[in-house]
Formats: sequence, structure tokens, C-alpha cells
Amino acid sequence: MEQLKKLIREVPDFPKPGINFYDITTLIKDAEGLEQTIDALTEQCRGLDIDKVIGIESRGFIFGAPLAYQLGVGFVPVRKPKKLPSETISVSYDLEYGQDTVEIHSDAVSKGERILIVDDLLATGGTARAVVDLVEKMGGSVAGVHVVIELEFLNPRARFDGYEVKSLLKYNS
Amino acid sequence: MEQLKKLIREVPDFPKPGINFYDITTLIKDAEGLEQTIDALTEQCRGLDIDKVIGIESRGFIFGAPLAYQLGVGFVPVRKPKKLPSETISVSYDLEYGQDTVEIHSDAVSKGERILIVDDLLATGGTARAVVDLVEKMGGSVAGVHVVIELEFLNPRARFDGYEVKSLLKYNS
Repeated sequence: MEQLKKLIREVPDFPKPGINFYDITTLIKDAEGLEQTIDALTEQCRGLDIDKVIGIESRGFIFGAPLAYQLGVGFVPVRKPKKLPSETISVSYDLEYGQDTVEIHSDAVSKGERILIVDDLLATGGTARAVVDLVEKMGGSVAGVHVVIELEFLNPRARFDGYEVKSLLKYNS
Repeated sequence: MEQLKKLIREVPDFPKPGINFYDITTLIKDAEGLEQTIDALTEQCRGLDIDKVIGIESRGFIFGAPLAYQLGVGFVPVRKPKKLPSETISVSYDLEYGQDTVEIHSDAVSKGERILIVDDLLATGGTARAVVDLVEKMGGSVAGVHVVIELEFLNPRARFDGYEVKSLLKYNS
């Protein structure tokens, strides 16, 4: 896995000064990088009972959709407000300054379904935690929160006590 | 293929009055719907020489990424302005009212590479045409423009003379 880090581009000061952005576009434009990442995400699900994969807009779609296909389950997008065309359920959550909201179609998850939440990167974990709350609000249960990159120094796991969090690549700064 | 139409939800008056929106989220949340769609997109590429797949933000990611994985090639996202972290190349194009712009990382396509452009839906074809121009501006060549849904009554193919356009599902209203 660690060799995949060579394919991740670090972009300083994006999207704002002081933030070191881990860019997965250089990983996925590489045929082997994409293949190894999807295969590793699939392997990471071994032994889990999963009914659907949720991908978080929009880089979560890039990893979540191939993973759902590989697992033989359906894929559900969670999006920013006003993007989904039919009836939605939403959850708002606090940011450092202000609030953000995520939406899901209200018929996307059925009661009792086991849902895997997928994103490219786990930083503070605020968005992924909101998606956990969304799934549970709909009567689904969370099979896990799986990401490609985990920024361990931001301690995202503090928000997911009792949930399975897995990542392929960990960074400490 | 036509049976997949049963899984597409039609949403009247979205995103604005008078538009009948073809919603693919009901197709992809269905395990078989997702599988058959990705398999058909893969089959549609048979005989084509493809080096990379471009997916157009953001529903194009949902189909383009699994397709790239299946074809064993890299995946490149084309995004709205300011979303990509590194150096970009952009193309602007006219809308009914105003303009829109799409961006790609300037190192995402190499000279001579054969690029398949993927999106969920082809309506007037304005965005996909802009992506064709972007690929050619970078010295790549367009292997095809492949989508799940084509709105034939908007005559999108008029913009793609000399290019291979393929779709799985066609609608005439």
C-alpha cells in the first residue's frame, strides 16, 4: 500500500493557506494506481456484510462507485443541498466557521440495510460523521467508514467511537 | 438495455420548470442496475483503443471511474472551476443564458493519448463538446463520447460531427 503514496500529489496551501492538500487525481490517472486502490478497497471489505455503498460528493463517487460494482451492491450518492432531484433527507453539521449540509434521497436507504460509507479522505471527519447520522436517521446501519487517505493528526476517529473506520494510506502531517 | 429504463426515475420540473429530469440514482442504487450499466458501458468500448477515461463532474464520475477500472486504464476528472488543486487548463462554452467553464489538470492528458469522455447524460451536448475541445487543446485525441442516457430530441450529435458518440438509453421527449 505505502508505495501508492508516491502517486499522491501534495499541494501546499489548497484550498486555503496553511492546508496541505493530498491530491488523489495523480493516483487515479495512473492505470495501476487506480486498479490497486480499488482492489485494496475491495479487500478491505472482506468479511463485512454490505447491502449498499454510499459515496460522498464528489471524490467519494470516484472510489465508491467502482467499489460498489466490485462488491455487487448498489451505489448511493450523498450530495450538497439542491443537487438531488427527488425527495431528500438532510443533516447539517458544524464546521470551524459556520455550518454545512449533506443530502440523500429519502428512498435511497431502506430500514435494516447495512451501508458502507466511502470517501477519498478523512480529515476532521465532520462530513462522514454527518453521513453516519443520515444513514441511521433512515433506519440503516453503518457497516463501516472506509477511505483512501486518513489524516491521523486531525484525529478523525474520535468522532466514530463504536464504528469501523478503515483507511489505505495514513498521514501524520 | 431497454429494461434499464424502468430503473430511471423521471422527475418533472427539475432543476427548473419545464425540464423533465432523468434521474440515474434509482438505476445505480439497484445492484443489478449498476452492474448491467457498467457492463454495457464496458461492452460499448469493445474494439476501441483507449488510454484514459475522463468523467465529467459529478455524475460522470459514477460511471467513468468503474469503467476506467474495468478497462484497466486511468481515470481523469473534469471539474467546475476552482475545484482541482494543481495547475489547470480550462475551456469556456456558451449556455442558453451566459457561459460555463470546465477545468482539467494540465498534466492529466499527454500528447497522443486516446481519451474516452464519459458522462451520465447527453442533452444539448455543450459540456461534453467543451471537454472534447479541452482534450484536443492538450494534444490528446478523442476515442469517443459515451453516455448512459441520450436525449435525442435535443439533437446533441450535431455538435460531434466526426466523433464516435454512443449511448445506452435514448429518449425522444
